[in-house]
Amino acid sequence: MSKSSIDLAVIPGDGIGPEVIAEALKVLEKAVAAEGVELQPTHYELGAEHWLATGETLPDEVLADLKTRDAILFGAVGAAPGDTRIPSGIIERELLLKLRFSLDHYVNLRPSRLYGTVGSPLANPGTIDFIVVREGTEGPYVGNGGTLRAGTPHEVATEVSLNTAHGVERVVRDAFRRASLRERKHVTLVHKHNVLVFAGHLWKRTVEAVAQEFPEVTHDYLHVDAATIFMVTDPSRFDVIVTDNLFGDIITDLAAAITGGIGLAASGNINMDRTAPSMFEPVHGSAPDIAGQGKADPTAAILSAALLLDHLGYAEAARRIEAAVVADVEKRDGKARSTSAVGDAIAAGL
Amino acid sequence: MSKSSIDLAVIPGDGIGPEVIAEALKVLEKAVAAEGVELQPTHYELGAEHWLATGETLPDEVLADLKTRDAILFGAVGAAPGDTRIPSGIIERELLLKLRFSLDHYVNLRPSRLYGTVGSPLANPGTIDFIVVREGTEGPYVGNGGTLRAGTPHEVATEVSLNTAHGVERVVRDAFRRASLRERKHVTLVHKHNVLVFAGHLWKRTVEAVAQEFPEVTHDYLHVDAATIFMVTDPSRFDVIVTDNLFGDIITDLAAAITGGIGLAASGNINMDRTAPSMFEPVHGSAPDIAGQGKADPTAAILSAALLLDHLGYAEAARRIEAAVVADVEKRDGKARSTSAVGDAIAAGL
Ligand SMILES: CC(C)[C@H](C(=O)O)[C@@H](O)C(=O)O
Ligand SMILES: CC(C)[C@H](C(=O)O)[C@@H](O)C(=O)O
Repeated sequence: MSKSSIDLAVIPGDGIGPEVIAEALKVLEKAVAAEGVELQPTHYELGAEHWLATGETLPDEVLADLKTRDAILFGAVGAAPGDTRIPSGIIERELLLKLRFSLDHYVNLRPSRLYGTVGSPLANPGTIDFIVVREGTEGPYVGNGGTLRAGTPHEVATEVSLNTAHGVERVVRDAFRRASLRERKHVTLVHKHNVLVFAGHLWKRTVEAVAQEFPEVTHDYLHVDAATIFMVTDPSRFDVIVTDNLFGDIITDLAAAITGGIGLAASGNINMDRTAPSMFEPVHGSAPDIAGQGKADPTAAILSAALLLDHLGYAEAARRIEAAVVADVEKRDGKARSTSAVGDAIAAGL
Repeated sequence: MSKSSIDLAVIPGDGIGPEVIAEALKVLEKAVAAEGVELQPTHYELGAEHWLATGETLPDEVLADLKTRDAILFGAVGAAPGDTRIPSGIIERELLLKLRFSLDHYVNLRPSRLYGTVGSPLANPGTIDFIVVREGTEGPYVGNGGTLRAGTPHEVATEVSLNTAHGVERVVRDAFRRASLRERKHVTLVHKHNVLVFAGHLWKRTVEAVAQEFPEVTHDYLHVDAATIFMVTDPSRFDVIVTDNLFGDIITDLAAAITGGIGLAASGNINMDRTAPSMFEPVHGSAPDIAGQGKADPTAAILSAALLLDHLGYAEAARRIEAAVVADVEKRDGKARSTSAVGDAIAAGL
């Protein structure tokens, strides 16, 4: 799969997005150069700022162009919370979610790991090293629903969660496959099947069926509410979590928080069938409050670049980035460093 | 509203339910006796065990009878996780949720407070003292959805979240009213309106409208994923949270975890219009693994009894129970005590 150049789409986005992406590119370029591979980045101006300037979210031609790339590195998008010029959620839905859905990013991969000295808010975090495989293309995220009699006392608003055997099975199988490659080989399904019976039972039955294909992998089940309790009382119990789009959104932010914060949380939006490029992004948002100040932590973006290399078949370069991140993180003493200082240190550590 | 006797329905339920309810009744009885009020409990056998014995979940006559009572004290229901004799979720939906929906328990009130020395899993919890007002009668809990082509590769399963202006407005108004009586007078709406646009905008618009009626109350908004981060990094920021049924389910378990565990978390399922009796229950479940061993912590059930007294207008008795709980909890040193020893100590402290 690896070749001598990587045709990379780069969507820096808004706020701190461009700042952290600059550092990720710095590290990425150096990591692949060591293997004789050239990074060929193409930048795309997309996001809230771009919408304000042009009224465009994700034009068809841009989407078509993105589809020709090997992979996408994504920063963060979104306006400042108080900015009323941008209809709420439009950038999230018509750019970020549109990319995930159009490019069939059904595996939303979010690893959670507590590095040696990084400050977890937990008093006794123990060893935390799990991955969440969040479904990325269906569930309550499909945008299916409506409003009747809006703004009247008789308003009714619906949201429909759509779940298909096709969609659930492929992501569950991916989770079991990933678990089979890990030491503990354990999958936990997180859902709420005692209340969300229809979707919940599809997920449960699918896990039982796919588990047959992986006799070496054990599995269990947690309701999402109970899962949040264990996240803070016993996160070591988790190895691979598989869950739906909305539950995955919630528990991965919590997982990031317990492992020292959203500044370290990487993610991949992966199309495992490779029918379209996958997209790698830090879990954090555009953080308009600290944008332009060189304060943002680029680590999550850099770790996302490592996931990108993994996906493209450059496992060794990915491991070297991760090792450089771990070495840097373990040296951190809470003193503030600039975004580029962190990027430089990690690049130097490659 | 207070009168000289309380006609109380008691549903002890399964597992540790009967054990913790016995202690709650002990404390409740003593607390109201001091005010010359007699407790007249009527026990109802309902739950997983009862279903196994009779096939009944909640017969119409029993529901009709419950409706005649002043209030309901509820323990916990549910079979052991591995028990395949009971269809998954049937007791939850056809008993617990049926009660909440039939009795129009639209305010699911869940206070979260960290008592002095109780072990929070957080390294620096700070002061935690907030309440969650969880909507209890609609949202993704309505049981609306279905399955097409079940068990085939073409299966589609849906879940429909139903949200009405009527349902959202009354619970939002309740949250603002509660906030107006608290010191910090702050309401946080938790939702995910950038993705769940239809329901999310109904909630947002309703909060903006109701806020006009309470000029002394400030309010803000958090996406549910961000809310889970703040729960572990800065829980002191919360005063009153208002949220939908499913998000409320998730964040109140997390809130219980950060305040020392589900053994202390009380809840009320309240019909503020008093068209039917309200129901008070510990947030924890039936914990079949420790049932019958006298190990369960009855504190959550006892605190739920205090919420019950508040609702019935016995605020002073409620405060005395809370004070006795606080005194007991602050003396705890991690040594195990039996369920009845805890109940006795709290009753003695009244
Ligand atoms: C920005 C938002 C639409 C997005 C999501 O909900 O998936 C974000 O929270 C995430 O987790 O990537
Ligand atoms: C048992 C279950 C149906 C219930 C819920 O989801 O509401 C429980 O988790 C709770 O929070 O009271």
